[in-house]
Amino acid sequence: MDEKLSFGSDYTKGAHPQILQRMVQTNMMDTPGYGLDEISGSARRRIREACACERATVEFLVGGTQTNAVMIDALLQSYQGVIAAMTGHISVHEAGAIEAGGHKVLVLPHQCGKLSADDVKKYLEDYHNDANHEHMVMPGMIYLSQPTEYGTLYTKKELQAFRKICDAYGLSLYVDGARLAYALACPENDVMLPDLAGLCDAFYIGGTKCGALFGEAVVLPDPGRIPGFFTIIKQHGALLAKGRLLGIQFDELFRDGLYMRIGRSAIEGAEAIRKALSEKGYRQCFGSPTNQIFCIMEKDALKALEEKVEYSFWEKYDDAHTVIRLATDWGTTEEEIKALTDIL
Amino acid sequence: MDEKLSFGSDYTKGAHPQILQRMVQTNMMDTPGYGLDEISGSARRRIREACACERATVEFLVGGTQTNAVMIDALLQSYQGVIAAMTGHISVHEAGAIEAGGHKVLVLPHQCGKLSADDVKKYLEDYHNDANHEHMVMPGMIYLSQPTEYGTLYTKKELQAFRKICDAYGLSLYVDGARLAYALACPENDVMLPDLAGLCDAFYIGGTKCGALFGEAVVLPDPGRIPGFFTIIKQHGALLAKGRLLGIQFDELFRDGLYMRIGRSAIEGAEAIRKALSEKGYRQCFGSPTNQIFCIMEKDALKALEEKVEYSFWEKYDDAHTVIRLATDWGTTEEEIKALTDIL
Amino acid sequence: MDEKLSFGSDYTKGAHPQILQRMVQTNMMDTPGYGLDEISGSARRRIREACACERATVEFLVGGTQTNAVMIDALLQSYQGVIAAMTGHISVHEAGAIEAGGHKVLVLPHQCGKLSADDVKKYLEDYHNDANHEHMVMPGMIYLSQPTEYGTLYTKKELQAFRKICDAYGLSLYVDGARLAYALACPENDVMLPDLAGLCDAFYIGGTKCGALFGEAVVLPDPGRIPGFFTIIKQHGALLAKGRLLGIQFDELFRDGLYMRIGRSAIEGAEAIRKALSEKGYRQCFGSPTNQIFCIMEKDALKALEEKVEYSFWEKYDDAHTVIRLATDWGTTEEEIKALTDIL
Amino acid sequence: MDEKLSFGSDYTKGAHPQILQRMVQTNMMDTPGYGLDEISGSARRRIREACACERATVEFLVGGTQTNAVMIDALLQSYQGVIAAMTGHISVHEAGAIEAGGHKVLVLPHQCGKLSADDVKKYLEDYHNDANHEHMVMPGMIYLSQPTEYGTLYTKKELQAFRKICDAYGLSLYVDGARLAYALACPENDVMLPDLAGLCDAFYIGGTKCGALFGEAVVLPDPGRIPGFFTIIKQHGALLAKGRLLGIQFDELFRDGLYMRIGRSAIEGAEAIRKALSEKGYRQCFGSPTNQIFCIMEKDALKALEEKVEYSFWEKYDDAHTVIRLATDWGTTEEEIKALTDIL
Repeated sequence: MDEKLSFGSDYTKGAHPQILQRMVQTNMMDTPGYGLDEISGSARRRIREACACERATVEFLVGGTQTNAVMIDALLQSYQGVIAAMTGHISVHEAGAIEAGGHKVLVLPHQCGKLSADDVKKYLEDYHNDANHEHMVMPGMIYLSQPTEYGTLYTKKELQAFRKICDAYGLSLYVDGARLAYALACPENDVMLPDLAGLCDAFYIGGTKCGALFGEAVVLPDPGRIPGFFTIIKQHGALLAKGRLLGIQFDELFRDGLYMRIGRSAIEGAEAIRKALSEKGYRQCFGSPTNQIFCIMEKDALKALEEKVEYSFWEKYDDAHTVIRLATDWGTTEEEIKALTDIL
Repeated sequence: MDEKLSFGSDYTKGAHPQILQRMVQTNMMDTPGYGLDEISGSARRRIREACACERATVEFLVGGTQTNAVMIDALLQSYQGVIAAMTGHISVHEAGAIEAGGHKVLVLPHQCGKLSADDVKKYLEDYHNDANHEHMVMPGMIYLSQPTEYGTLYTKKELQAFRKICDAYGLSLYVDGARLAYALACPENDVMLPDLAGLCDAFYIGGTKCGALFGEAVVLPDPGRIPGFFTIIKQHGALLAKGRLLGIQFDELFRDGLYMRIGRSAIEGAEAIRKALSEKGYRQCFGSPTNQIFCIMEKDALKALEEKVEYSFWEKYDDAHTVIRLATDWGTTEEEIKALTDIL
Repeated sequence: MDEKLSFGSDYTKGAHPQILQRMVQTNMMDTPGYGLDEISGSARRRIREACACERATVEFLVGGTQTNAVMIDALLQSYQGVIAAMTGHISVHEAGAIEAGGHKVLVLPHQCGKLSADDVKKYLEDYHNDANHEHMVMPGMIYLSQPTEYGTLYTKKELQAFRKICDAYGLSLYVDGARLAYALACPENDVMLPDLAGLCDAFYIGGTKCGALFGEAVVLPDPGRIPGFFTIIKQHGALLAKGRLLGIQFDELFRDGLYMRIGRSAIEGAEAIRKALSEKGYRQCFGSPTNQIFCIMEKDALKALEEKVEYSFWEKYDDAHTVIRLATDWGTTEEEIKALTDIL
Repeated sequence: MDEKLSFGSDYTKGAHPQILQRMVQTNMMDTPGYGLDEISGSARRRIREACACERATVEFLVGGTQTNAVMIDALLQSYQGVIAAMTGHISVHEAGAIEAGGHKVLVLPHQCGKLSADDVKKYLEDYHNDANHEHMVMPGMIYLSQPTEYGTLYTKKELQAFRKICDAYGLSLYVDGARLAYALACPENDVMLPDLAGLCDAFYIGGTKCGALFGEAVVLPDPGRIPGFFTIIKQHGALLAKGRLLGIQFDELFRDGLYMRIGRSAIEGAEAIRKALSEKGYRQCFGSPTNQIFCIMEKDALKALEEKVEYSFWEKYDDAHTVIRLATDWGTTEEEIKALTDIL
């Protein structure tokens, strides 16, 4: 085998074959643009059903950074900022897309990628108690990732605590679900789609990293939550002309439970890797139960590994060790898992 | 036949089958994200070759409004505006995406969708002669569409005149080629890709309306023209994670002249329709020689037509007449053309 | 006399002496910053009384462009634009300040600087009838200047027509009163401060051009109209640390009718000039009844004039003639008027 | 005495009497607007001379937040951010003005309000070493306050270290001198105006808190550093119509060393207070040598104090103690100092 095993990220392949097949079948159909087609309509219905939220507005955008920028702009007033963990995708890896929209990201410390409701509450109390708070950015929403950038999960109880804070202080709650399939399918997870629909002002169901070619499905449980939403999407250059392509991704992902199956297979692969790492004495970190595995590697071991395996550098641990990330996804095969655990 | 003939727009179908086929073939490949893969590399090489511009930077974005917003932001200083025809896509149909980036669109009158170099020159002279010009938006670039929103074409001589003005006044020249295939393939056209590369600071080769699923290829003939370009794209939420998908679109479109063939077939179809319209006594307008046909229809004739044909409403002509647009594209078949001309 | 007569603009002098005197008297007082002081409080009360609007929120900003940028940002949603006359200050002479805030200025033709309610209504109807209107900038407010940049006035009936349109289409009505003193004091005017308070969502009472050193007083008849208003002002860098200075300007301007007296004296001066111009056979234009006088001057006459008088170039009339503007203000003396009419 | 002693801030009074006097003297002069008058010209000359930098561009803005927003926008490219201490004014107390301009504030830890050059260097190295740095905000400038928000000072050596880093990494160096008079006059200070002119890309000399009614003088040692600067100022709503008012502030402040005298008297007052606090056993903190005094007060002592003295709450120290700030300024009298030290 002259190619490396691919565990570098969860967006290295194309799409689940079922999606490609649908694209081939429908390729010569003529449909209206901009998501007004019947395939997108069907995808919306399937998502509403999965969320047990018949009234929800569902719109399809192309990518994660784009979706976050659109949604934060749509949910905030011009003078408000968004609270996020220091490690949040919007805080670090979106090249200032949120600030380009005029909004400050108000960062708070994290625990393994998670915000704490207590920290947020204290921040809001301090803000309101500060005599100069009108000279400061007003917090207008909370941004959470489920799973987080460290692969960890919020529990339903934790999300309820954030909801309570949002209600008390007039903030919106928004969940970035770029890897949501891998949260939903995780045995430790107790937050299902209807819970998100019940607790959030808005959230998105990730496609790009969960089996689609691209695409993120935004869900607004209250359909009147964002007036002018279509125009806002267009204004951000985020409206796909051939919107049905996004419809196809999600119509397939939400047909007969494919989205859950994709998640489960990636989680099972990750579990097998975690078990092998454990058995072979590697130290893991962050306690991620989802499709991302974080492992502390000694220099020589890492050198050996990188000849055969694609992985992500995460951070320096100490002079002799490095934290690396391995990621499984919808397309990771049992053979690949076996090959990897053999190498470890 | 229970479906209407589709002449409403040039983005109603999927993609040229050759593109889909390549997507199926490469679906399970593992490649790096964000356009750093080898397929995107190959597509870049093909485009550089087609433009006879080896040094060019080529980047792939997803859609037209997005591309315009990114490029205008990238080419302008914060205090500059972009000159465009009143009918330019950025002036009318981008929901304020340019202004959302902080830039004013400085509109000038049009002739069948075209800006006149003389008008632009006069505008620049007036600006510089105005004692208060420092209180006004400084014009920083010229936006042209080729073909225009009215299907018309700039000649090489006209583009040279714009280039000369840009050099004299320190402006950038940018061409929106959303439908460029239909310009390049038009018998009347004398502006080829190497001409655009020789005359523009930046232009884009449209994929979405010219046979791709989606995608626009930005060409910067001078590779150092826009420092930080990658980050600018990311900041606008315009960086596709699975960038190779865009690479595939353009690697196929620019393999063995497919892009030109696509253009030619649409132009031939449009010519046939124009001929039929002429023979049957319909008045056409704007003199478009490309894939868009503009026709003045009398009320009853239009009523009859719309039972069988999808078209676009363009504008009211007078109380008894309407201007409609018919569009052909890469997928329009001879059968469809024949069916339409039979109906007319 | 070795200095030219000053009719170039209405902001060439300092402030009405009464204002300076108050500044000297209060100079060593210690007061809280940011407009929370008692002098600002008193000024607010006087303005509310003059507007017969006890509930109004009144805030003081420093300059006109700043005030327009703040107010338009505060009144619009992120995806909305502001309707203005082509000749509106925000359309032409604010260096793109409105677009820098992310909003498009939607320009309509003017009649002597005035928007027509019929034109606006037609624009809004067309917008809503356009099948693609969700791809366009949603009009969110109407911007009017009273008096206009051409010195003309809206009647109460005209403002009522705009109000009706705003109510019908869900827009805000905003009036830029940079030169409001010269409207209020004009015999032809029938729109007084209580009318503005009754008809507008927001307007501002100009200080800079009407006797103050600087300062514009924003009036929001409905105090809850703009949540977060203080923070919005700060965010725009428009919050003056020593806010009492602005309070002083308006506490004096609205003490014992000074603002009206200032306006009246400038109007009387302008009337005298207009009469003299008429008698001497000069053609005037735009029909301005306020403190700006527009006159068509033949080349040689202009050359003679400019040796002795400061005026503003307005626009070229034809090859032999120029339109110039003469402006009176609070400080223009009878001697200056006499000297000017003697020269004419 | 029925009024409290005023040590709450350094912008509670009007202006140094010499400035007011000049305003009264020049009030009826007619001058061109927007800073093109001869008084502003004279003020520019005096500042260039004080900075020993004949070529410098000097422009006058109204307030500090406004100046920071304008300058950061002017010095950064659209995709760049500004490095600042967590406690920097732009990080905390400008209501998101920097983000409203599209730029991220990249915060680093502080030591008594100061950034460390080593921290900044490490940040820049990490940024450039990060494989994903093109997905992150590119640092484009460093923001320092002299004195800092905690009253502390950068040494010349420290500024030289920042300059070196800026040169190595292509960043701009910008110093916010809102309270610069109190740095320049401090015995511990070794950074004079010519040093700032030699080390910075831009800095501003604060007027508002240093004896002026309002106004900040921006100095660009390299006059070509910011093309379009006038228009940028206008675009931000920061161009004062009667610009000569700003000219007057600085023409007086820089006549015969007034700016230094103002600073010195405030520093001497602060020294006297610090000495008294020390002698009476109060703990001070942050080690500020400038016009701000930070003192840890026990609850009961504070209660007694606040009946007679205006101060600023700074932060909670522990359950029994509070950090307060006392500020002297150009107008603080010996009597006030004595009254305060008697109370302590």
